[in-house]
Amino acid sequence: MIYQRVALIGLGLIASSMAHALRAGGLAGEIVGYARSPETRTVARDLFCDRVCETAADAVKGADLVVLCVPVGAMEALAAEIAPCLKPGAVVTDVGSVKQAVVDAVGPHLPQGVHFIPGHPLAGTEYSGPRSGFATLFQNRWWLLTPSPDTDATEIARLRSLLEAMGANVDEMDVARHDLVLAVVSHTPHLIAYTMVGVADHMRRVSAQEVIKYSASGFRDFTRIAASDPTMWRDVFLTNKDAVLDILGRFAEELFTLQRAIRVGDGEHLHAYFTRTREIRRGIIEAGQDTAAPDFGRTAPQPKGN
Amino acid sequence: MIYQRVALIGLGLIASSMAHALRAGGLAGEIVGYARSPETRTVARDLFCDRVCETAADAVKGADLVVLCVPVGAMEALAAEIAPCLKPGAVVTDVGSVKQAVVDAVGPHLPQGVHFIPGHPLAGTEYSGPRSGFATLFQNRWWLLTPSPDTDATEIARLRSLLEAMGANVDEMDVARHDLVLAVVSHTPHLIAYTMVGVADHMRRVSAQEVIKYSASGFRDFTRIAASDPTMWRDVFLTNKDAVLDILGRFAEELFTLQRAIRVGDGEHLHAYFTRTREIRRGIIEAGQDTAAPDFGRTAPQPKGN
Repeated sequence: MIYQRVALIGLGLIASSMAHALRAGGLAGEIVGYARSPETRTVARDLFCDRVCETAADAVKGADLVVLCVPVGAMEALAAEIAPCLKPGAVVTDVGSVKQAVVDAVGPHLPQGVHFIPGHPLAGTEYSGPRSGFATLFQNRWWLLTPSPDTDATEIARLRSLLEAMGANVDEMDVARHDLVLAVVSHTPHLIAYTMVGVADHMRRVSAQEVIKYSASGFRDFTRIAASDPTMWRDVFLTNKDAVLDILGRFAEELFTLQRAIRVGDGEHLHAYFTRTREIRRGIIEAGQDTAAPDFGRTAPQPKGN
Repeated sequence: MIYQRVALIGLGLIASSMAHALRAGGLAGEIVGYARSPETRTVARDLFCDRVCETAADAVKGADLVVLCVPVGAMEALAAEIAPCLKPGAVVTDVGSVKQAVVDAVGPHLPQGVHFIPGHPLAGTEYSGPRSGFATLFQNRWWLLTPSPDTDATEIARLRSLLEAMGANVDEMDVARHDLVLAVVSHTPHLIAYTMVGVADHMRRVSAQEVIKYSASGFRDFTRIAASDPTMWRDVFLTNKDAVLDILGRFAEELFTLQRAIRVGDGEHLHAYFTRTREIRRGIIEAGQDTAAPDFGRTAPQPKGN
């Protein structure tokens, strides 16, 4: 057992997966939860929490570790609410996809003597809600921590040991660098995927039926990403605005260069570009961050209503 | 057995998968192959062809069905070479991702009495070459045919029965519509994926190591698509130029609208957009065109060198 009492605030995919993993590993003495929605609280009580409270303030009372698992835009109000109830010496962490905004929203509210260690698990699926969690979600996934330099090293080490016990690989990073790197590897790709799916949705000349029917030729991969939680992603883009706009600018430049190559028929440029991008895929597979199985190893879909 | 002798010209992922599927189903009396590369011919002889020829012209001699499986840009020269050797009454089809360009390149070369039925299997993986094929690649995947209205109905029906016997669902489509629909569901998504991967590649502020290390947060999905065969995709963009440029224009409009919403902080617009796109994913899963398993049902990658 690494923490006696763990409070999870916001009980979606990440918190429910954490609860399952904590239970599986016997890592917490008691798992206390809170979610805004009564339905979610009921599910949490049935599936993965030892105790569920009616308010976030109640849930954090006496907790040794408090994990904020709400959308980034909800962090500030939550921090203000729970601050007076935090146990002295408690560790507060979060799982937000953006870190500077969370540091700014949460930090000022926390009392002296509480250790704030912002965090971000690079793990998830396209599903959300309290029923979507599973204990192995963090296996071999990165969990980034962005503590300020004056954070108690013992408390960082203890939190690391918990995350590692759930299967995660932990890295520490500077806050600004985190937000830029994530804009490249996560935020901008999500916006691009949403955009491509939106284009298909708007194509009145091509009926939705055809777009769905023939989606296996590439488009369907985008729709998985574009099925992620809308509230979470809205908040990501609003709070990591500068880095996302920077990367979007670069994306537009690259896209226009390729578009021009298509327009003028510059096959050499296209071929060289498409050859370079192949290398990156190889690196990801060698780093153990994706499967080498063709087509992600998808099982052949079952025939339906042909 | 549906055709006595089938000639496959160009022996990559699609042709090798066809050969495996034809053998598995006992659908062809003899499978003859030709590829430009001597290494590929050796692999084909060992793995899936009954006979391999040194020229495409030799390979098509006496064939009842000839399948052109070369990149779209190589179709015209190939058609010119094989035309004099085609057996009267033979069926010629192809597997190119663009149809108008293939019709224009191949059609004029074919002699009277040969039946030309352009085709396009919406199936593939990110792997290419003669070792990448497998018999079930076409299971429950669409195979589009774009014959001209005066094509012999009996020959279309015979080809359909072959494709269906390999597990495919066959649809007939107008040539121009095919090229537009595919620009939406396949060609533009591929270009977008290549672009996103290219942006990451160019990001000097963010080292390649970080991009690869943290790729599981969204980016890695793009790299799979961007690992597809560069020659094939170069030819797709050069030959379906008008439709791709049309869809790219719409994509840029949508992207700029979302970019502006981020810049001005219009959370409602973003949330509404991200909610709509979720629906399309649901439709694709209901249509049996993708797995509902979280994260494509990827197996958890194995830990490596942490």
